[in-house]
Amino acid sequence: MKTLGIIGADGRMGQAVGLAAQKRYDIVARISKDDADYPALSQCDVVIDFSVGSALVQALPHFSDGTALVSGTTGLSPDEERAISNVSARLPLLRSGNFSIGIAVLCALARQAAASLGDDWDVEVLEMHHRHKVDAPSGTALMLGEALAKGRGVTLSDVAAHERAGARRIGDIGFSVLRGGGIYGDHEVRIVSESEQITLGHRALNRQVFADGAVQAADWLLGRPAGLYSLEDMITV
Amino acid sequence: MKTLGIIGADGRMGQAVGLAAQKRYDIVARISKDDADYPALSQCDVVIDFSVGSALVQALPHFSDGTALVSGTTGLSPDEERAISNVSARLPLLRSGNFSIGIAVLCALARQAAASLGDDWDVEVLEMHHRHKVDAPSGTALMLGEALAKGRGVTLSDVAAHERAGARRIGDIGFSVLRGGGIYGDHEVRIVSESEQITLGHRALNRQVFADGAVQAADWLLGRPAGLYSLEDMITV
Amino acid sequence: MKTLGIIGADGRMGQAVGLAAQKRYDIVARISKDDADYPALSQCDVVIDFSVGSALVQALPHFSDGTALVSGTTGLSPDEERAISNVSARLPLLRSGNFSIGIAVLCALARQAAASLGDDWDVEVLEMHHRHKVDAPSGTALMLGEALAKGRGVTLSDVAAHERAGARRIGDIGFSVLRGGGIYGDHEVRIVSESEQITLGHRALNRQVFADGAVQAADWLLGRPAGLYSLEDMITV
Amino acid sequence: MKTLGIIGADGRMGQAVGLAAQKRYDIVARISKDDADYPALSQCDVVIDFSVGSALVQALPHFSDGTALVSGTTGLSPDEERAISNVSARLPLLRSGNFSIGIAVLCALARQAAASLGDDWDVEVLEMHHRHKVDAPSGTALMLGEALAKGRGVTLSDVAAHERAGARRIGDIGFSVLRGGGIYGDHEVRIVSESEQITLGHRALNRQVFADGAVQAADWLLGRPAGLYSLEDMITV
Repeated sequence: MKTLGIIGADGRMGQAVGLAAQKRYDIVARISKDDADYPALSQCDVVIDFSVGSALVQALPHFSDGTALVSGTTGLSPDEERAISNVSARLPLLRSGNFSIGIAVLCALARQAAASLGDDWDVEVLEMHHRHKVDAPSGTALMLGEALAKGRGVTLSDVAAHERAGARRIGDIGFSVLRGGGIYGDHEVRIVSESEQITLGHRALNRQVFADGAVQAADWLLGRPAGLYSLEDMITV
Repeated sequence: MKTLGIIGADGRMGQAVGLAAQKRYDIVARISKDDADYPALSQCDVVIDFSVGSALVQALPHFSDGTALVSGTTGLSPDEERAISNVSARLPLLRSGNFSIGIAVLCALARQAAASLGDDWDVEVLEMHHRHKVDAPSGTALMLGEALAKGRGVTLSDVAAHERAGARRIGDIGFSVLRGGGIYGDHEVRIVSESEQITLGHRALNRQVFADGAVQAADWLLGRPAGLYSLEDMITV
Repeated sequence: MKTLGIIGADGRMGQAVGLAAQKRYDIVARISKDDADYPALSQCDVVIDFSVGSALVQALPHFSDGTALVSGTTGLSPDEERAISNVSARLPLLRSGNFSIGIAVLCALARQAAASLGDDWDVEVLEMHHRHKVDAPSGTALMLGEALAKGRGVTLSDVAAHERAGARRIGDIGFSVLRGGGIYGDHEVRIVSESEQITLGHRALNRQVFADGAVQAADWLLGRPAGLYSLEDMITV
Repeated sequence: MKTLGIIGADGRMGQAVGLAAQKRYDIVARISKDDADYPALSQCDVVIDFSVGSALVQALPHFSDGTALVSGTTGLSPDEERAISNVSARLPLLRSGNFSIGIAVLCALARQAAASLGDDWDVEVLEMHHRHKVDAPSGTALMLGEALAKGRGVTLSDVAAHERAGARRIGDIGFSVLRGGGIYGDHEVRIVSESEQITLGHRALNRQVFADGAVQAADWLLGRPAGLYSLEDMITV
């Protein structure tokens, strides 16, 4: 059994990763604010990190060369970004803001659909999340928008339509937001012509999906050469 | 076979009504700007009107007492409204801004669902129409919103949320708008708690639905006593 | 704080009820095979039962008069059914095979929609559950079918269509089944005419919904007169 | 303006093609049973055929070399198949049983999704058509099933599940069928794991979509080298 370390082990995501990984990995390091036993990381085959930039940077010197690192930490300072980038010279590093495999596949499909269908097809992105979510549209909806814009060869900020007034502009990518109850995360792309509609949808059935995806990323990353990887590299579309 | 007259017979809706009615009615009057043979209306058992306020008001004196009148004309002046109201003293009159039977049923169901489920259920209304529609949200989405607000015993303008910023306010009724391609009209109400979601949806499969509904309203109105009726009176929920 | 007892406390549903109830009730009796302290039930204001017929029947003599009893146990023998029926003479009893409030509301709405819309509207029921579910269609899909048949004034077994061959018979209620992954339970009624479609849908977001519904049933049942109640009695549609 | 001929010009599809093409093409030949002016075909840049095998075969000798031929005729005899195959040596020929561009794109996406996602994702195909459709599942649902099976590297007939009994077999591709009202054609692929669901859907908004697709195929085929093409060749996914 391979050995795993978790940075941010007491956070919501860190705990979920622990549950998701415990059958397949021997968890030999659980780093948290209250128990920062960084040297234990040197014995890990793979490390999964959901913490903050400062904790991650502090941990990096303790990694053995070749240790696989999966990181979901966001909001790093420029200095922290530099430190992370440097480490990919000596170990395989996979970073992502969303570890759902389904969303990674959906982004790839959305990009290809947008590339295949011309401007006489209108594109809309719809998302729904639980009532407590404060940002809108969701980061994942924007990721889908980026994929669609890339497929069309345009820049998202030039075509994103967040409000409705008057008739639709040709080429717009519209965003719609719903909020309610305990919805974990629903996303839908609608691509519509005068005569037909294609929909590409994703629904998270629970919060565990993001932890599961991080562990699958760890499985995939183990033994790869040093370098920077993304979730899309795992998807063979 | 009963006799039918159409006011606004050359308009898009008037033509569709002609097609929808021709198997069940003998169409003996087709009033349009270019062929305003108002006296022919005196021979009609029922009249369907999709015109403008001035044309309708000009037509009223030619109706025999008891002639059923179905009117989809909107945007009347106060004087025109008064003239229409007066005519319901001597004939059965059914007015509506939307003649889809399905939407009338959905409004009734939405009101009842909202009355049954407490404030721990969040309510959202989503609509999608073709790319040429200029107003948003659709009049029908607002009708659904009114039905939901009525079910909750609140005033729609107090709780309607048309934009997203920050966490959801308890009791809000949110509206989301999509536009694209040739969609005739999709509406969906989502009512969501921490653990379950109810959806109430409607989809128009073609533009004919609105003409069909007007003819069904005519069928229903024939022979009723004088007075003002609404589409919901036809629905026995 | 009112006192609660749970029969079948160590089962999947019993445990979920314990979690759902612990903030609102003082749980003073947890009856299981290994800890059958029946006399503790006499101190309960309300008892929630998810067990088997024999355990429930053994528990009944220990209830004080007026104790509210919510029971989700199914598959009782005729003798056990008789014992349960008798107890409703001396205490309020609410029984159901499905404690989702949303499903109860959806059944009421489906019955009303079917009653409002004629035979030129076709009715279909679609359900999807996780890959492990062995019976098809789900009991809840059949409950929806019963509600629709009742709305139409027909008997479900006369009109239920479980397979497709040739054109649709007028008046049929069709059932479709999907199975996959970890879906907790999706149900959808589609009512479709030549020109429009109404959909009534329900989605369970987690398994907790059924335990939550049982606790809400307990809240509602407390203090009511003796007699037999159903989940629909809670719904004021 | 390029010149177009239609074989089967008086059929439902032939008429729809005439409407779809009239703005972009000069229609110089309309071949029907009652007006079989085959020599007019020699003046066409492109010919669209929705007829029967015998009519098509009779028309072939009148084509100039290099005339593009789009054919939606199905059910050819072996002799007729041979005649058609031979003609692709001297002109560009595109044949398909379904000319919706959206369905062609959806098949490509479904194949790729199935190739990207392992056997721990369950695959279901759902279709709904109008009440008059007699075959089930639809040919298009089976096309989607073929695409999904191809993506997984399996044979559809080995894994297709048309009925539900007991728990789901790993690797099955399930089919579900709904029938009702005037639905032109809805298709949905659901790919579901323990924690997430991807959906790929298509909806025809009218019957015109199939004629539009045939005309787009004509646009694309004009000027290509002789040979046999399929609708998927048009899609650059």
